[in-house]
Amino acid sequence: MNRSTSSPPLFKRVYLLGTGLIGGSLALDLKDSGLVETVVGSDSLPERSESALSIGILDEIQPMVPEVVRRCDLVILAVPVLNLREILSTGFEKDTLVTDAGSVKGDAVSGYREAVAAGRGYRYVPGHPIAGDEKSGPEAARRGLFVGARVILTPVDASRQDVSDVSALWEGVGGRIKIMDPDEHDEVFAWVSHMPHMAAYAIIDSVLARDPDLVDLSGGGLRDYTRIAASNPRMWADIAVANREKLLIAARGLGDSLNKIISALEEGDHDRLESAFQRIASVRRSLK
Amino acid sequence: MNRSTSSPPLFKRVYLLGTGLIGGSLALDLKDSGLVETVVGSDSLPERSESALSIGILDEIQPMVPEVVRRCDLVILAVPVLNLREILSTGFEKDTLVTDAGSVKGDAVSGYREAVAAGRGYRYVPGHPIAGDEKSGPEAARRGLFVGARVILTPVDASRQDVSDVSALWEGVGGRIKIMDPDEHDEVFAWVSHMPHMAAYAIIDSVLARDPDLVDLSGGGLRDYTRIAASNPRMWADIAVANREKLLIAARGLGDSLNKIISALEEGDHDRLESAFQRIASVRRSLK
Repeated sequence: MNRSTSSPPLFKRVYLLGTGLIGGSLALDLKDSGLVETVVGSDSLPERSESALSIGILDEIQPMVPEVVRRCDLVILAVPVLNLREILSTGFEKDTLVTDAGSVKGDAVSGYREAVAAGRGYRYVPGHPIAGDEKSGPEAARRGLFVGARVILTPVDASRQDVSDVSALWEGVGGRIKIMDPDEHDEVFAWVSHMPHMAAYAIIDSVLARDPDLVDLSGGGLRDYTRIAASNPRMWADIAVANREKLLIAARGLGDSLNKIISALEEGDHDRLESAFQRIASVRRSLK
Repeated sequence: MNRSTSSPPLFKRVYLLGTGLIGGSLALDLKDSGLVETVVGSDSLPERSESALSIGILDEIQPMVPEVVRRCDLVILAVPVLNLREILSTGFEKDTLVTDAGSVKGDAVSGYREAVAAGRGYRYVPGHPIAGDEKSGPEAARRGLFVGARVILTPVDASRQDVSDVSALWEGVGGRIKIMDPDEHDEVFAWVSHMPHMAAYAIIDSVLARDPDLVDLSGGGLRDYTRIAASNPRMWADIAVANREKLLIAARGLGDSLNKIISALEEGDHDRLESAFQRIASVRRSLK
Protein backbone atom coordinates (compact mmCIF):
# COMPACT_ATOMS: atom_id res chain seq x y z
CA MET A 1 0.00 0.00 0.00
CA ASN A 2 2.96 2.35 0.46
CA ARG A 3 3.73 4.45 -2.54
CA SER A 4 7.31 5.22 -3.43
CA THR A 5 8.45 8.27 -1.50
CA SER A 6 9.08 10.08 -4.78
CA SER A 7 5.40 9.87 -5.91
CA PRO A 8 3.52 13.11 -5.46
CA PRO A 9 0.37 12.77 -3.34
CA LEU A 10 -2.87 12.09 -5.21
CA PHE A 11 -4.53 14.84 -3.20
CA LYS A 12 -2.31 17.28 -1.32
CA ARG A 13 -4.92 18.57 1.10
CA VAL A 14 -8.24 16.90 1.90
CA TYR A 15 -11.20 18.17 3.90
CA LEU A 16 -12.79 15.41 6.01
CA LEU A 17 -16.22 15.96 7.50
CA GLY A 18 -16.99 13.22 10.02
CA THR A 19 -14.22 11.50 11.94
CA GLY A 20 -15.95 8.25 12.90
CA LEU A 21 -15.02 4.68 12.03
CA ILE A 22 -15.18 5.18 8.25
CA GLY A 23 -13.80 8.72 7.93
CA GLY A 24 -11.18 8.16 10.61
CA SER A 25 -9.91 4.85 9.23
CA LEU A 26 -9.75 6.28 5.71
CA ALA A 27 -7.78 9.36 6.82
CA LEU A 28 -5.25 7.25 8.74
CA ASP A 29 -4.60 5.01 5.72
CA LEU A 30 -4.53 7.86 3.21
CA LYS A 31 -1.80 9.61 5.14
CA ASP A 32 0.17 6.44 5.84
CA SER A 33 0.15 5.54 2.16
CA GLY A 34 1.27 8.99 1.05
CA LEU A 35 -1.83 9.39 -1.13
CA VAL A 36 -2.79 12.44 0.88
CA GLU A 37 -0.45 14.89 2.56
CA THR A 38 -2.71 16.76 4.95
CA VAL A 39 -6.21 16.07 6.31
CA VAL A 40 -8.09 18.99 7.78
CA GLY A 41 -11.67 18.72 8.91
CA SER A 42 -14.16 18.46 11.72
CA ASP A 43 -16.87 16.40 13.33
CA SER A 44 -20.31 17.57 14.36
CA LEU A 45 -19.30 16.80 17.95
CA PRO A 46 -16.38 19.01 19.11
CA GLU A 47 -15.03 16.32 21.45
CA ARG A 48 -14.81 13.94 18.51
CA SER A 49 -12.87 16.51 16.50
CA GLU A 50 -10.43 16.82 19.41
CA SER A 51 -10.15 13.10 19.70
CA ALA A 52 -9.53 12.79 15.92
CA LEU A 53 -6.77 15.37 16.19
CA SER A 54 -5.04 13.57 19.04
CA ILE A 55 -5.29 10.18 17.30
CA GLY A 56 -3.79 11.66 14.13
CA ILE A 57 -6.89 11.38 11.93
CA LEU A 58 -6.94 15.16 11.50
CA ASP A 59 -3.89 17.37 11.13
CA GLU A 60 -5.96 20.49 11.80
CA ILE A 61 -9.49 21.07 13.05
CA GLN A 62 -11.13 23.48 10.60
CA PRO A 63 -14.79 24.35 10.02
CA MET A 64 -16.29 23.42 6.65
CA VAL A 65 -16.51 26.96 5.28
CA PRO A 66 -15.67 28.15 1.74
CA GLU A 67 -12.33 29.73 2.65
CA VAL A 68 -11.14 26.44 4.15
CA VAL A 69 -12.65 24.14 1.52
CA ARG A 70 -11.23 26.30 -1.29
CA ARG A 71 -7.70 25.37 -0.18
CA CYS A 72 -8.49 21.62 -0.35
CA ASP A 73 -8.30 19.31 -3.41
CA LEU A 74 -11.05 17.00 -2.19
CA VAL A 75 -13.90 16.96 0.32
CA ILE A 76 -14.76 13.60 1.90
CA LEU A 77 -18.16 13.48 3.60
CA ALA A 78 -18.18 10.62 6.11
CA VAL A 79 -21.35 11.59 7.93
CA PRO A 80 -24.69 9.90 8.69
CA VAL A 81 -26.84 9.36 5.61
CA LEU A 82 -29.52 11.95 6.39
CA ASN A 83 -26.96 14.69 7.17
CA LEU A 84 -25.24 13.74 3.95
CA ARG A 85 -28.24 14.59 1.85
CA GLU A 86 -28.64 17.94 3.56
CA ILE A 87 -24.98 18.86 3.02
CA LEU A 88 -24.98 17.72 -0.60
CA SER A 89 -28.15 19.71 -1.35
CA THR A 90 -26.69 22.86 0.22
CA GLY A 91 -23.93 22.74 -2.38
CA PHE A 92 -20.26 23.72 -2.70
CA GLU A 93 -18.29 26.04 -4.93
CA LYS A 94 -18.24 24.98 -8.59
CA ASP A 95 -14.68 23.61 -8.65
CA THR A 96 -14.92 21.63 -5.43
CA LEU A 97 -14.48 17.87 -5.82
CA VAL A 98 -16.70 16.02 -3.32
CA THR A 99 -17.03 12.34 -2.47
CA ASP A 100 -18.85 10.54 0.31
CA ALA A 101 -19.18 7.21 2.07
CA GLY A 102 -22.94 6.93 2.54
CA SER A 103 -24.78 3.58 2.41
CA VAL A 104 -27.69 4.94 0.35
CA LYS A 105 -26.86 6.56 -2.96
CA GLY A 106 -30.17 7.59 -4.58
CA ASP A 107 -30.92 9.93 -1.71
CA ALA A 108 -27.40 11.43 -1.83
CA VAL A 109 -27.64 11.95 -5.60
CA SER A 110 -31.04 13.63 -5.12
CA GLY A 111 -29.39 16.03 -2.69
CA TYR A 112 -26.66 16.77 -5.23
CA ARG A 113 -29.28 17.37 -7.94
CA GLU A 114 -31.10 19.85 -5.72
CA ALA A 115 -27.86 21.80 -5.41
CA VAL A 116 -27.36 21.68 -9.20
CA ALA A 117 -30.93 22.85 -9.80
CA ALA A 118 -30.31 25.77 -7.43
CA GLY A 119 -27.14 26.74 -9.31
CA ARG A 120 -24.83 25.43 -6.57
CA GLY A 121 -23.46 22.41 -8.46
CA TYR A 122 -19.96 20.94 -7.88
CA ARG A 123 -17.86 17.94 -8.91
CA TYR A 124 -19.39 14.92 -7.16
CA VAL A 125 -18.35 11.25 -7.11
CA PRO A 126 -20.71 9.34 -4.80
CA GLY A 127 -19.10 6.41 -2.94
CA HIS A 128 -20.00 3.56 -0.59
CA PRO A 129 -17.29 1.45 1.03
CA ILE A 130 -18.66 -1.91 2.23
CA ALA A 131 -16.84 -1.90 5.54
CA GLY A 132 -17.44 -1.25 9.20
CA ASP A 133 -18.93 -3.01 12.19
CA GLU A 134 -20.91 -2.24 15.34
CA LYS A 135 -18.25 0.14 16.62
CA SER A 136 -18.31 3.85 15.95
CA GLY A 137 -16.43 7.06 16.71
CA PRO A 138 -12.81 8.17 16.16
CA GLU A 139 -11.54 5.64 18.71
CA ALA A 140 -12.93 2.83 16.54
CA ALA A 141 -10.90 3.99 13.52
CA ARG A 142 -8.22 1.54 12.48
CA ARG A 143 -5.66 1.10 9.76
CA GLY A 144 -6.40 -1.46 7.04
CA LEU A 145 -10.21 -1.34 7.45
CA PHE A 146 -10.71 -1.18 3.67
CA VAL A 147 -8.22 -3.84 2.59
CA GLY A 148 -10.14 -6.16 0.27
CA ALA A 149 -13.39 -4.24 0.79
CA ARG A 150 -15.72 -3.59 -2.10
CA VAL A 151 -16.14 0.15 -2.72
CA ILE A 152 -19.09 1.11 -4.90
CA LEU A 153 -18.96 4.38 -6.84
CA THR A 154 -22.16 5.68 -8.45
CA PRO A 155 -21.12 8.69 -10.56
CA VAL A 156 -23.90 10.51 -12.37
CA ASP A 157 -22.23 13.39 -14.15
CA ALA A 158 -18.65 13.38 -12.84
CA SER A 159 -15.77 13.57 -15.33
CA ARG A 160 -13.77 10.45 -16.14
CA GLN A 161 -10.76 12.06 -14.44
CA ASP A 162 -12.64 12.72 -11.20
CA VAL A 163 -13.98 9.16 -11.09
CA SER A 164 -10.50 7.85 -11.78
CA ASP A 165 -8.96 9.97 -9.00
CA VAL A 166 -11.57 8.94 -6.42
CA SER A 167 -11.11 5.30 -7.52
CA ALA A 168 -7.35 5.64 -7.03
CA LEU A 169 -7.97 7.02 -3.54
CA TRP A 170 -9.97 3.95 -2.46
CA GLU A 171 -7.73 1.50 -4.29
CA GLY A 172 -4.79 3.07 -2.52
CA VAL A 173 -6.22 1.93 0.84
CA GLY A 174 -7.00 -1.56 -0.44
CA GLY A 175 -10.55 -1.16 -1.81
CA ARG A 176 -11.88 -2.93 -4.90
CA ILE A 177 -13.89 -0.47 -7.01
CA LYS A 178 -17.23 -1.33 -8.59
CA ILE A 179 -19.16 1.26 -10.62
CA MET A 180 -22.96 1.08 -10.36
CA ASP A 181 -26.01 3.15 -11.11
CA PRO A 182 -27.26 4.81 -7.84
CA ASP A 183 -30.70 3.29 -8.20
CA GLU A 184 -29.34 -0.21 -8.86
CA HIS A 185 -27.00 0.21 -5.88
CA ASP A 186 -29.90 1.03 -3.56
CA GLU A 187 -31.99 -1.85 -4.79
CA VAL A 188 -29.17 -4.37 -4.34
CA PHE A 189 -28.35 -3.12 -0.85
CA ALA A 190 -32.01 -3.00 0.17
CA TRP A 191 -32.03 -6.77 -0.39
CA VAL A 192 -28.58 -7.91 0.70
CA SER A 193 -27.95 -5.56 3.58
CA HIS A 194 -30.77 -3.28 4.73
CA MET A 195 -33.61 -5.85 4.76
CA PRO A 196 -31.51 -8.54 6.51
CA HIS A 197 -30.62 -5.92 9.08
CA MET A 198 -34.29 -5.06 9.67
CA ALA A 199 -34.91 -8.81 10.02
CA ALA A 200 -32.36 -9.05 12.82
CA TYR A 201 -34.14 -6.20 14.60
CA ALA A 202 -37.51 -7.91 14.10
CA ILE A 203 -36.19 -11.22 15.47
CA ILE A 204 -34.82 -9.66 18.65
CA ASP A 205 -37.87 -7.43 19.02
CA SER A 206 -40.21 -10.43 18.85
CA VAL A 207 -38.20 -12.32 21.48
CA LEU A 208 -38.19 -9.28 23.76
CA ALA A 209 -41.95 -8.93 23.32
CA ARG A 210 -42.37 -12.55 24.39
CA ASP A 211 -39.97 -12.56 27.33
CA PRO A 212 -36.75 -10.53 27.71
CA ASP A 213 -35.21 -13.29 29.84
CA LEU A 214 -35.22 -15.59 26.81
CA VAL A 215 -32.29 -13.70 25.32
CA ASP A 216 -30.01 -14.94 28.09
CA LEU A 217 -30.78 -18.54 27.17
CA SER A 218 -29.68 -18.15 23.58
CA GLY A 219 -27.04 -20.51 22.28
CA GLY A 220 -25.48 -19.81 18.91
CA GLY A 221 -28.77 -19.08 17.15
CA LEU A 222 -29.95 -15.82 18.58
CA ARG A 223 -26.52 -14.52 19.44
CA ASP A 224 -25.61 -13.93 15.77
CA TYR A 225 -28.67 -11.73 15.47
CA THR A 226 -28.01 -9.77 18.65
CA ARG A 227 -24.60 -8.91 17.20
CA ILE A 228 -26.16 -7.62 13.97
CA ALA A 229 -28.89 -5.78 15.85
CA ALA A 230 -26.30 -4.09 18.08
CA SER A 231 -25.18 -1.77 15.26
CA ASN A 232 -25.59 1.99 15.56
CA PRO A 233 -29.40 2.64 15.87
CA ARG A 234 -29.21 6.20 14.50
CA MET A 235 -27.23 5.08 11.46
CA TRP A 236 -29.71 2.31 10.67
CA ALA A 237 -32.78 4.51 11.16
CA ASP A 238 -31.12 6.93 8.71
CA ILE A 239 -30.45 4.18 6.18
CA ALA A 240 -33.97 2.79 6.52
CA VAL A 241 -35.57 6.17 5.93
CA ALA A 242 -33.18 7.20 3.15
CA ASN A 243 -33.77 3.95 1.24
CA ARG A 244 -37.30 3.42 2.40
CA GLU A 245 -39.10 2.74 -0.89
CA LYS A 246 -36.75 -0.04 -1.95
CA LEU A 247 -36.42 -1.34 1.59
CA LEU A 248 -40.21 -1.58 1.90
CA ILE A 249 -40.35 -3.82 -1.18
CA ALA A 250 -37.63 -6.06 0.28
CA ALA A 251 -39.23 -6.13 3.74
CA ARG A 252 -42.58 -7.11 2.23
CA GLY A 253 -40.76 -9.80 0.22
CA LEU A 254 -39.37 -11.14 3.48
CA GLY A 255 -42.88 -11.12 4.93
CA ASP A 256 -44.09 -13.19 1.97
CA SER A 257 -41.32 -15.75 2.41
CA LEU A 258 -42.02 -15.95 6.14
CA ASN A 259 -45.70 -16.52 5.41
CA LYS A 260 -44.83 -19.38 3.04
CA ILE A 261 -42.92 -21.09 5.85
CA ILE A 262 -45.73 -20.39 8.33
CA SER A 263 -48.29 -21.93 5.98
CA ALA A 264 -46.17 -25.06 5.41
CA LEU A 265 -45.83 -25.31 9.19
CA GLU A 266 -49.57 -24.92 9.72
CA GLU A 267 -50.10 -27.85 7.38
CA GLY A 268 -47.25 -29.80 9.01
CA ASP A 269 -45.90 -30.31 5.50
CA HIS A 270 -42.48 -31.84 6.14
CA ASP A 271 -41.69 -32.46 2.47
CA ARG A 272 -42.45 -28.91 1.44
CA LEU A 273 -40.33 -27.53 4.27
CA GLU A 274 -37.44 -29.89 3.55
CA SER A 275 -37.36 -29.15 -0.18
CA ALA A 276 -37.56 -25.40 0.45
CA PHE A 277 -34.74 -25.59 3.02
CA GLN A 278 -32.71 -27.74 0.61
CA ARG A 279 -33.00 -25.17 -2.15
CA ILE A 280 -32.12 -22.32 0.20
CA ALA A 281 -29.18 -24.18 1.77
CA SER A 282 -27.67 -24.87 -1.64
CA VAL A 283 -27.04 -21.14 -2.12
CA ARG A 284 -24.20 -21.26 0.34
CA ARG A 285 -22.38 -23.86 -1.68
CA SER A 286 -22.51 -21.72 -4.80
CA LEU A 287 -21.18 -18.60 -3.07
CA LYS A 288 -17.86 -17.38 -4.41
CA MET B 1 -11.62 -34.50 31.47
CA ASN B 2 -9.52 -37.63 32.06
CA ARG B 3 -10.64 -39.68 34.98
CA SER B 4 -8.06 -41.37 37.14
CA THR B 5 -7.16 -44.73 35.62
CA SER B 6 -8.39 -46.45 38.76
CA SER B 7 -11.97 -45.15 38.40
CA PRO B 8 -14.39 -47.71 37.07
CA PRO B 9 -16.25 -46.62 33.94
CA LEU B 10 -19.60 -44.87 34.51
CA PHE B 11 -21.13 -47.15 31.88
CA LYS B 12 -19.22 -50.23 30.81
CA ARG B 13 -20.98 -50.83 27.54
CA VAL B 14 -23.10 -48.29 25.63
CA TYR B 15 -25.34 -48.74 22.63
CA LEU B 16 -25.13 -45.74 20.22
CA LEU B 17 -27.76 -45.34 17.53
CA GLY B 18 -26.67 -42.67 15.06
CA THR B 19 -23.01 -41.96 14.41
CA GLY B 20 -23.22 -38.41 13.06
CA LEU B 21 -21.65 -35.23 14.41
CA ILE B 22 -23.34 -35.43 17.83
CA GLY B 23 -23.31 -39.18 18.44
CA GLY B 24 -19.83 -39.60 16.97
CA SER B 25 -18.25 -36.76 18.91
CA LEU B 26 -19.86 -37.95 22.14
CA ALA B 27 -18.61 -41.54 21.68
CA LEU B 28 -15.04 -40.41 20.99
CA ASP B 29 -14.93 -38.29 24.14
CA LEU B 30 -16.67 -40.86 26.34
CA LYS B 31 -14.06 -43.46 25.47
CA ASP B 32 -11.12 -41.06 25.76
CA SER B 33 -12.25 -39.98 29.19
CA GLY B 34 -12.71 -43.54 30.44
CA LEU B 35 -16.37 -42.86 31.28
CA VAL B 36 -17.37 -45.61 28.88
CA GLU B 37 -15.42 -48.73 28.04
CA THR B 38 -17.07 -49.98 24.87
CA VAL B 39 -19.42 -48.38 22.36
CA VAL B 40 -21.41 -50.68 20.11
CA GLY B 41 -24.04 -49.42 17.74
CA SER B 42 -25.11 -48.60 14.24
CA ASP B 43 -26.27 -45.92 11.87
CA SER B 44 -29.29 -46.05 9.56
CA LEU B 45 -26.84 -45.83 6.67
CA PRO B 46 -24.50 -48.89 6.54
CA GLU B 47 -21.64 -46.88 5.03
CA ARG B 48 -21.82 -44.49 7.96
CA SER B 49 -21.64 -47.41 10.40
CA GLU B 50 -18.51 -48.62 8.59
CA SER B 51 -17.03 -45.16 8.65
CA ALA B 52 -17.80 -44.82 12.38
CA LEU B 53 -16.04 -48.14 13.02
CA SER B 54 -12.92 -47.10 11.13
CA ILE B 55 -12.77 -43.68 12.86
CA GLY B 56 -13.07 -45.36 16.27
CA ILE B 57 -16.54 -44.04 17.17
CA LEU B 58 -17.87 -47.60 17.33
CA ASP B 59 -15.98 -50.59 18.68
CA GLU B 60 -18.49 -52.97 17.10
CA ILE B 61 -21.30 -52.57 14.59
CA GLN B 62 -24.38 -54.23 16.11
CA PRO B 63 -28.07 -53.93 15.24
CA MET B 64 -30.37 -52.37 17.85
CA VAL B 65 -32.13 -55.60 18.85
CA PRO B 66 -33.07 -56.77 22.38
CA GLU B 67 -30.27 -59.34 22.68
CA VAL B 68 -27.68 -56.64 21.91
CA VAL B 69 -29.28 -53.85 23.93
CA ARG B 70 -29.74 -56.16 26.93
CA ARG B 71 -25.97 -56.38 27.30
CA CYS B 72 -25.57 -52.56 27.37
CA ASP B 73 -25.87 -50.23 30.39
CA LEU B 74 -27.14 -47.27 28.39
CA VAL B 75 -28.70 -46.57 25.00
CA ILE B 76 -27.86 -43.20 23.39
CA LEU B 77 -30.17 -42.18 20.57
CA ALA B 78 -28.41 -39.58 18.40
CA VAL B 79 -30.82 -39.68 15.48
CA PRO B 80 -32.98 -37.11 13.63
CA VAL B 81 -35.84 -35.78 15.72
CA LEU B 82 -38.69 -37.50 13.87
CA ASN B 83 -36.97 -40.91 13.93
CA LEU B 84 -36.35 -40.33 17.61
CA ARG B 85 -40.03 -40.11 18.39
CA GLU B 86 -40.74 -43.30 16.46
CA ILE B 87 -38.01 -45.23 18.26
CA LEU B 88 -39.02 -43.92 21.68
CA SER B 89 -42.67 -44.83 21.09
CA THR B 90 -41.74 -48.37 20.00
CA GLY B 91 -40.23 -48.89 23.42
CA PHE B 92 -37.43 -50.92 25.05
CA GLU B 93 -37.22 -53.57 27.72
CA LYS B 94 -38.22 -52.38 31.17
CA ASP B 95 -34.71 -52.12 32.63
CA THR B 96 -33.13 -50.36 29.69
CA LEU B 97 -31.76 -46.87 30.42
CA VAL B 98 -32.22 -44.61 27.39
CA THR B 99 -31.10 -41.05 26.68
CA ASP B 100 -31.13 -38.97 23.52
CA ALA B 101 -29.76 -35.79 21.96
CA GLY B 102 -32.81 -34.44 20.14
CA SER B 103 -33.49 -30.71 19.76
CA VAL B 104 -37.22 -31.02 20.52
CA LYS B 105 -38.21 -32.60 23.81
CA GLY B 106 -42.02 -32.48 24.03
CA ASP B 107 -42.30 -34.67 20.96
CA ALA B 108 -39.72 -37.14 22.29
CA VAL B 109 -41.47 -37.34 25.66
CA SER B 110 -44.80 -37.95 23.86
CA GLY B 111 -43.15 -40.88 22.09
CA TYR B 112 -41.93 -42.24 25.40
CA ARG B 113 -45.40 -41.84 26.91
CA GLU B 114 -46.94 -43.81 24.05
CA ALA B 115 -44.55 -46.64 24.86
CA VAL B 116 -45.47 -46.45 28.56
CA ALA B 117 -49.19 -46.47 27.72
CA ALA B 118 -48.65 -49.56 25.60
CA GLY B 119 -46.83 -51.31 28.45
CA ARG B 120 -43.40 -50.93 26.85
CA GLY B 121 -41.98 -48.34 29.26
CA TYR B 122 -38.28 -48.04 30.12
CA ARG B 123 -35.90 -45.75 32.04
CA TYR B 124 -35.70 -42.52 30.03
CA VAL B 125 -33.65 -39.35 30.57
CA PRO B 126 -34.29 -36.95 27.64
CA GLY B 127 -31.34 -34.74 26.68
CA HIS B 128 -30.39 -31.93 24.34
CA PRO B 129 -26.77 -30.82 23.96
CA ILE B 130 -26.53 -27.28 22.50
CA ALA B 131 -23.70 -28.03 20.12
CA GLY B 132 -23.07 -28.69 16.47
CA ASP B 133 -22.76 -26.74 13.27
CA GLU B 134 -23.59 -27.06 9.57
CA LYS B 135 -21.47 -30.19 9.20
CA SER B 136 -22.85 -33.68 9.60
CA GLY B 137 -21.87 -37.35 9.42
CA PRO B 138 -19.23 -39.45 11.24
CA GLU B 139 -16.39 -37.57 9.49
CA ALA B 140 -17.60 -34.36 11.12
CA ALA B 141 -17.28 -35.89 14.61
CA ARG B 142 -14.58 -34.27 16.73
CA ARG B 143 -13.21 -34.47 20.21
CA GLY B 144 -14.10 -31.65 22.61
CA LEU B 145 -17.32 -30.65 20.81
CA PHE B 146 -19.21 -30.44 24.11
CA VAL B 147 -16.65 -28.58 26.19
CA GLY B 148 -18.51 -25.65 27.76
CA ALA B 149 -21.73 -26.56 25.94
CA ARG B 150 -25.04 -26.29 27.70
CA VAL B 151 -26.77 -29.70 27.93
CA ILE B 152 -30.46 -29.60 28.80
CA LEU B 153 -32.03 -32.64 30.47
CA THR B 154 -35.83 -32.81 30.69
CA PRO B 155 -36.60 -35.87 32.87
CA VAL B 156 -40.26 -36.67 33.42
CA ASP B 157 -40.32 -39.81 35.54
CA ALA B 158 -36.70 -40.93 35.65
CA SER B 159 -35.15 -41.82 39.01
CA ARG B 160 -32.77 -39.41 40.68
CA GLN B 161 -29.97 -41.93 40.13
CA ASP B 162 -30.59 -42.20 36.39
CA VAL B 163 -30.68 -38.40 36.01
CA SER B 164 -27.49 -38.16 38.02
CA ASP B 165 -25.73 -40.80 35.89
CA VAL B 166 -26.74 -39.20 32.58
CA SER B 167 -25.68 -35.81 33.98
CA ALA B 168 -22.29 -37.28 34.90
CA LEU B 169 -21.94 -38.63 31.36
CA TRP B 170 -22.38 -35.17 29.78
CA GLU B 171 -20.38 -33.39 32.46
CA GLY B 172 -17.58 -35.86 31.83
CA VAL B 173 -17.25 -34.57 28.26
CA GLY B 174 -17.38 -30.92 29.32
CA GLY B 175 -21.13 -30.17 29.24
CA ARG B 176 -22.93 -27.89 31.70
CA ILE B 177 -26.20 -29.50 32.78
CA LYS B 178 -29.46 -27.60 33.05
CA ILE B 179 -32.69 -29.36 34.04
CA MET B 180 -35.88 -28.08 32.40
CA ASP B 181 -39.45 -29.10 31.86
CA PRO B 182 -39.84 -30.51 28.29
CA ASP B 183 -42.55 -28.03 27.43
CA GLU B 184 -40.56 -25.07 28.74
CA HIS B 185 -37.52 -26.33 26.82
CA ASP B 186 -39.45 -26.39 23.54
CA GLU B 187 -40.90 -22.96 24.07
CA VAL B 188 -37.51 -21.42 24.83
CA PHE B 189 -35.87 -23.07 21.83
CA ALA B 190 -38.75 -22.16 19.52
CA TRP B 191 -37.87 -18.52 20.26
CA VAL B 192 -34.10 -18.51 20.59
CA SER B 193 -33.18 -21.10 18.00
CA HIS B 194 -35.93 -22.52 15.78
CA MET B 195 -37.65 -19.23 14.84
CA PRO B 196 -34.37 -17.39 14.14
CA HIS B 197 -33.40 -20.31 11.94
CA MET B 198 -36.67 -20.08 10.00
CA ALA B 199 -36.01 -16.33 9.66
CA ALA B 200 -32.66 -17.02 7.99
CA TYR B 201 -34.41 -19.32 5.52
CA ALA B 202 -37.07 -16.68 4.84
CA ILE B 203 -34.45 -13.97 4.25
CA ILE B 204 -32.51 -16.05 1.72
CA ASP B 205 -35.72 -17.30 0.12
CA SER B 206 -36.97 -13.74 -0.42
CA VAL B 207 -33.68 -12.67 -1.99
CA LEU B 208 -33.72 -15.72 -4.29
CA ALA B 209 -37.29 -14.92 -5.29
CA ARG B 210 -36.24 -11.40 -6.21
CA ASP B 211 -33.02 -12.26 -8.07
CA PRO B 212 -30.64 -15.15 -7.34
CA ASP B 213 -27.67 -13.09 -8.59
CA LEU B 214 -28.13 -10.71 -5.66
CA VAL B 215 -26.64 -13.29 -3.32
CA ASP B 216 -23.25 -12.91 -4.96
CA LEU B 217 -23.24 -9.20 -4.18
CA SER B 218 -23.70 -9.69 -0.45
CA GLY B 219 -21.19 -8.14 1.87
CA GLY B 220 -21.26 -9.07 5.53
CA GLY B 221 -25.03 -8.73 5.89
CA LEU B 222 -26.47 -11.59 3.94
CA ARG B 223 -23.47 -13.85 4.35
CA ASP B 224 -24.19 -14.48 8.04
CA TYR B 225 -27.66 -15.68 7.06
CA THR B 226 -26.47 -17.93 4.24
CA ARG B 227 -24.24 -19.68 6.79
CA ILE B 228 -27.18 -20.26 9.15
CA ALA B 229 -29.44 -21.35 6.28
CA ALA B 230 -26.81 -23.83 5.08
CA SER B 231 -27.54 -26.22 7.97
CA ASN B 232 -28.91 -29.70 7.33
CA PRO B 233 -32.33 -29.22 5.62
CA ARG B 234 -33.72 -32.58 6.74
CA MET B 235 -32.77 -31.95 10.36
CA TRP B 236 -34.42 -28.53 10.33
CA ALA B 237 -37.59 -29.74 8.63
CA ASP B 238 -37.75 -32.39 11.38
CA ILE B 239 -37.29 -29.83 14.12
CA ALA B 240 -39.86 -27.47 12.59
CA VAL B 241 -42.48 -30.21 12.36
CA ALA B 242 -41.69 -31.72 15.77
CA ASN B 243 -41.96 -28.33 17.50
CA ARG B 244 -44.51 -26.86 15.15
CA GLU B 245 -47.09 -25.49 17.57
CA LYS B 246 -44.60 -23.48 19.59
CA LEU B 247 -42.63 -22.54 16.49
CA LEU B 248 -45.76 -21.21 14.83
CA ILE B 249 -46.37 -18.85 17.75
CA ALA B 250 -42.78 -17.59 17.54
CA ALA B 251 -42.90 -17.26 13.73
CA ARG B 252 -46.12 -15.26 13.95
CA GLY B 253 -44.49 -13.11 16.64
CA LEU B 254 -41.65 -12.43 14.22
CA GLY B 255 -44.23 -11.50 11.55
CA ASP B 256 -45.80 -9.01 13.99
CA SER B 257 -42.44 -7.40 14.75
CA LEU B 258 -41.61 -7.22 11.04
CA ASN B 259 -44.96 -5.55 10.39
CA LYS B 260 -44.24 -2.95 13.07
CA ILE B 261 -41.02 -2.04 11.26
CA ILE B 262 -42.81 -2.00 7.89
CA SER B 263 -45.47 0.33 9.22
CA ALA B 264 -42.89 2.74 10.72
CA LEU B 265 -41.12 2.65 7.34
CA GLU B 266 -44.35 3.35 5.47
CA GLU B 267 -44.81 6.43 7.61
CA GLY B 268 -41.13 7.36 7.24
CA ASP B 269 -41.08 7.67 11.03
CA HIS B 270 -37.38 8.08 11.80
CA ASP B 271 -37.84 8.66 15.52
CA ARG B 272 -39.95 5.56 15.98
CA LEU B 273 -37.42 3.45 14.07
CA GLU B 274 -34.46 4.89 15.94
CA SER B 275 -35.98 4.39 19.37
CA ALA B 276 -37.02 0.83 18.51
CA PHE B 277 -33.52 0.04 17.17
CA GLN B 278 -31.99 1.63 20.27
CA ARG B 279 -34.02 -0.57 22.59
CA ILE B 280 -33.20 -3.70 20.58
CA ALA B 281 -29.48 -2.87 20.30
CA SER B 282 -29.20 -2.46 24.05
CA VAL B 283 -29.92 -6.17 24.52
CA ARG B 284 -26.44 -7.01 23.27
CA ARG B 285 -24.84 -4.90 25.96
CA SER B 286 -26.73 -6.67 28.70
CA LEU B 287 -25.82 -10.16 27.46
CA LYS B 288 -23.71 -12.12 29.85
